[in-house]
Amino acid sequence: MMHNSADSAFRQTLLDHLPDDVLRDAEPRYSEEPRGRWQGAIGLVAAPRSTDQVAQLVALAADARVPVVPYGGGTGLVGGQIMPEGPAPLVISLERMNSIRAIYPEENVLICDAGAILAQVQQAAAAAGRLFPLSLAAQGTARIGGNLATNAGGTGVLRYGNARDLCLGLEAVLPDGQIWHGLKRLRKDNTGYDLRHLLIGSEGTLGIITAASLKLSPQPAHMGTALFVVPSPQAALSLLALARARLGEMVSAFELISGQGLAFLSETLPDVRQPFDVAPAWSVLIDVGLVQGLDPQDALEELFASALSEGLVEDGIVAQSHQQAADFWAVRERIPEANKRIGSISSHDVSLPLGALPAFIDRGRALVEGLGDFRINCFGHVGDGNLHYNVFPAQGGRVSNHQNQRAEVQRRVHDLVHDMGGSVSAEHGIGRLKVDDLERYSDPAKLAAMRAIKTALDPFGIMNPGAVLNTAQMAVKQT
Amino acid sequence: MMHNSADSAFRQTLLDHLPDDVLRDAEPRYSEEPRGRWQGAIGLVAAPRSTDQVAQLVALAADARVPVVPYGGGTGLVGGQIMPEGPAPLVISLERMNSIRAIYPEENVLICDAGAILAQVQQAAAAAGRLFPLSLAAQGTARIGGNLATNAGGTGVLRYGNARDLCLGLEAVLPDGQIWHGLKRLRKDNTGYDLRHLLIGSEGTLGIITAASLKLSPQPAHMGTALFVVPSPQAALSLLALARARLGEMVSAFELISGQGLAFLSETLPDVRQPFDVAPAWSVLIDVGLVQGLDPQDALEELFASALSEGLVEDGIVAQSHQQAADFWAVRERIPEANKRIGSISSHDVSLPLGALPAFIDRGRALVEGLGDFRINCFGHVGDGNLHYNVFPAQGGRVSNHQNQRAEVQRRVHDLVHDMGGSVSAEHGIGRLKVDDLERYSDPAKLAAMRAIKTALDPFGIMNPGAVLNTAQMAVKQT
Repeated sequence: MMHNSADSAFRQTLLDHLPDDVLRDAEPRYSEEPRGRWQGAIGLVAAPRSTDQVAQLVALAADARVPVVPYGGGTGLVGGQIMPEGPAPLVISLERMNSIRAIYPEENVLICDAGAILAQVQQAAAAAGRLFPLSLAAQGTARIGGNLATNAGGTGVLRYGNARDLCLGLEAVLPDGQIWHGLKRLRKDNTGYDLRHLLIGSEGTLGIITAASLKLSPQPAHMGTALFVVPSPQAALSLLALARARLGEMVSAFELISGQGLAFLSETLPDVRQPFDVAPAWSVLIDVGLVQGLDPQDALEELFASALSEGLVEDGIVAQSHQQAADFWAVRERIPEANKRIGSISSHDVSLPLGALPAFIDRGRALVEGLGDFRINCFGHVGDGNLHYNVFPAQGGRVSNHQNQRAEVQRRVHDLVHDMGGSVSAEHGIGRLKVDDLERYSDPAKLAAMRAIKTALDPFGIMNPGAVLNTAQMAVKQT
Repeated sequence: MMHNSADSAFRQTLLDHLPDDVLRDAEPRYSEEPRGRWQGAIGLVAAPRSTDQVAQLVALAADARVPVVPYGGGTGLVGGQIMPEGPAPLVISLERMNSIRAIYPEENVLICDAGAILAQVQQAAAAAGRLFPLSLAAQGTARIGGNLATNAGGTGVLRYGNARDLCLGLEAVLPDGQIWHGLKRLRKDNTGYDLRHLLIGSEGTLGIITAASLKLSPQPAHMGTALFVVPSPQAALSLLALARARLGEMVSAFELISGQGLAFLSETLPDVRQPFDVAPAWSVLIDVGLVQGLDPQDALEELFASALSEGLVEDGIVAQSHQQAADFWAVRERIPEANKRIGSISSHDVSLPLGALPAFIDRGRALVEGLGDFRINCFGHVGDGNLHYNVFPAQGGRVSNHQNQRAEVQRRVHDLVHDMGGSVSAEHGIGRLKVDDLERYSDPAKLAAMRAIKTALDPFGIMNPGAVLNTAQMAVKQT
């Protein structure tokens, strides 16, 4: 693949066609990512003010065979937003395209620029008496275009779905600089191939999302939160089934917390209020969002009583106030920070068939213990079958002493996930971190189809090269 | 495009590689479609017994450049399942691949062959205490592979989504005969481009779905049904918003019925029990599926009282028995049969942004009345913004007197839908009926991307040629 750097000549080409201020300084933030794993190369940074400007930038990059890296909030965890190798790219940041374009409360629809920050979208929906349910740790920084490009997950998926399930339509610039005007506000539209779902989750390798039509929901009348101690992950799943049998779609979140996670919090973030005197091995955080006529505390207490009679819970606290609910959520949400302070050897964003989760947790523990003296913090969106599965040195141990084991731990955990019918990237995507995993674990026919689609839509391979697919190995049009 | 007929030489090729009984007689059903609009050409009909056999058939067809028409239940309304022109195709019917492969009630997952009949899937789910919520008139005949290939809709979409929203994974044979093994049971899987969503809705032009992993739901504890008379379509939408504010996702169906539809029923199907003494201009059929602790009759009566105080309803009946609920549904479900007996000049499966629906109904009426003396029956899945909009001759008039107006009526109605941000195919797909509409109304960048994808995945253009895209105009690999 022959690409050219976004050099001073290309800079001049851009300035011949676009206002000077479309270019920004290449600040360090554009070349860093949250894990500190890679340092990106940058040729130029453009921050367009309109979809037309994005289209011009992409068309000029295509003409010049300059790689393009789309940039949202920069919060991705798999390196999809930075390009460490090859000719220095044109980074196109959507930061100036951050308007809420329109909101239709009676339709439960909101249309915004791709650069709108997730929290801003949530707030605009709330101001209109509606809910935009995508909810994740980075929501104060992440931009909706990046959320869609990576099909973000988070804590609202159980009830409301992934980012792709919340999107009714897209506007996007395709790799040849054409604008696809697809901002439909329709619940049903069977007119041809679903380009929307193809772009969502393609991580900037098939185009740049410039705006989205998003699905809102009614706000639940009453919210309730509880922490229940469960005897096992299997009991957690049975509790989930019981909760859904009793409350249907009104179960909004169902998160697993491990005793190891609580211990890490206690060790590294003592300001976080521990909910139990003795940290239980397994607990679940449950949110319910109920309709009028149902009382959340009653509902959660009845759920607890019913679960207790079936041996599915051992202890529990139903939040009696917003503050207590917020405290419970702080426990869950600060676990990643505690993990970071402890320092993991390897971390995994995996999903399993729900029925296979308990066996995976057992087999994973046996596997990891067989590899050395490690601690495991396994937690997360258990209602979606999605675990964040992180491996740490033993108490007092140092990550630096296990560098040579990192690759083996990762490989063995991923092999186990794959063997059990799971996914090695549940919600974070492939980015640059998991390109080899994708090649190893993907179905060959799917991988071949992906390559054919990439080549068809991006014949010069300029869109986010090196992310998702190993384009260096692909036949790419040279002329 | 150079294709060859599935002739006697090709028949021999198939028999050299596959058991004799893979071929079936070319019975008339394989060359007919429900609207009686086209007569298909057939070279050979194969009914494979396994995915491997499907793969062999497609690979041999690809080698011989023989067109392939995938065939499910044959219930599609847009001619996607028959090929009236060109070299006689190989029809591959999935009728012998109709097993429920596995069911995982605790995961809310069911895996079945693509040839499983929709009603059979519903029954298997029910037998396991679960709900498979895809529900449509043809469910006793339609096969799940066809439902997915066309992204079928129906009456459960408001709560549970389209066919695509009910699919966790696919197994499919791609146009080169490769099998994609993608039968995941995962709620989250961000590993590369979403081939599942690309195949769903591609109407057999990108491959043949051979099996699916389907999402089940808990069965609601209590069902309730009501018919409410509303003063206008706008009131119907406000009633929907009120119902969802009160009952959230537990509103399962919300269907609009017009006075014209009731009059057609009365005229052509007098055995259908009319719910009201005087047929109201507009009424809505509401289904709720409630959790434990909520009474459906109370919920519907309270909804009615609340709506009455806001002027959103004028009259209403809450079903007091299963039989009465079934009678209400019979009214809704037999309207298409009444339409058929009256005989429409043109029929439209359109969707609009919810907020634009009332204006569309007004403008559509003015438009159609301006074209001649017609009757309109406008009804359907109003909660999804999806109307079945059918135009009929005036009382006593004959369709045959309006043949020359058919094209104009269709075009003008579709133009109006498009101008108002709607879709000219909400749930039926493009098939062969709406290829020209797709070319007329699609965004050019989307259409170009669709063509590029089709050429990339099906370079010889053998998969269902003439459906969705006008492949005759596309550059297709000749060698």
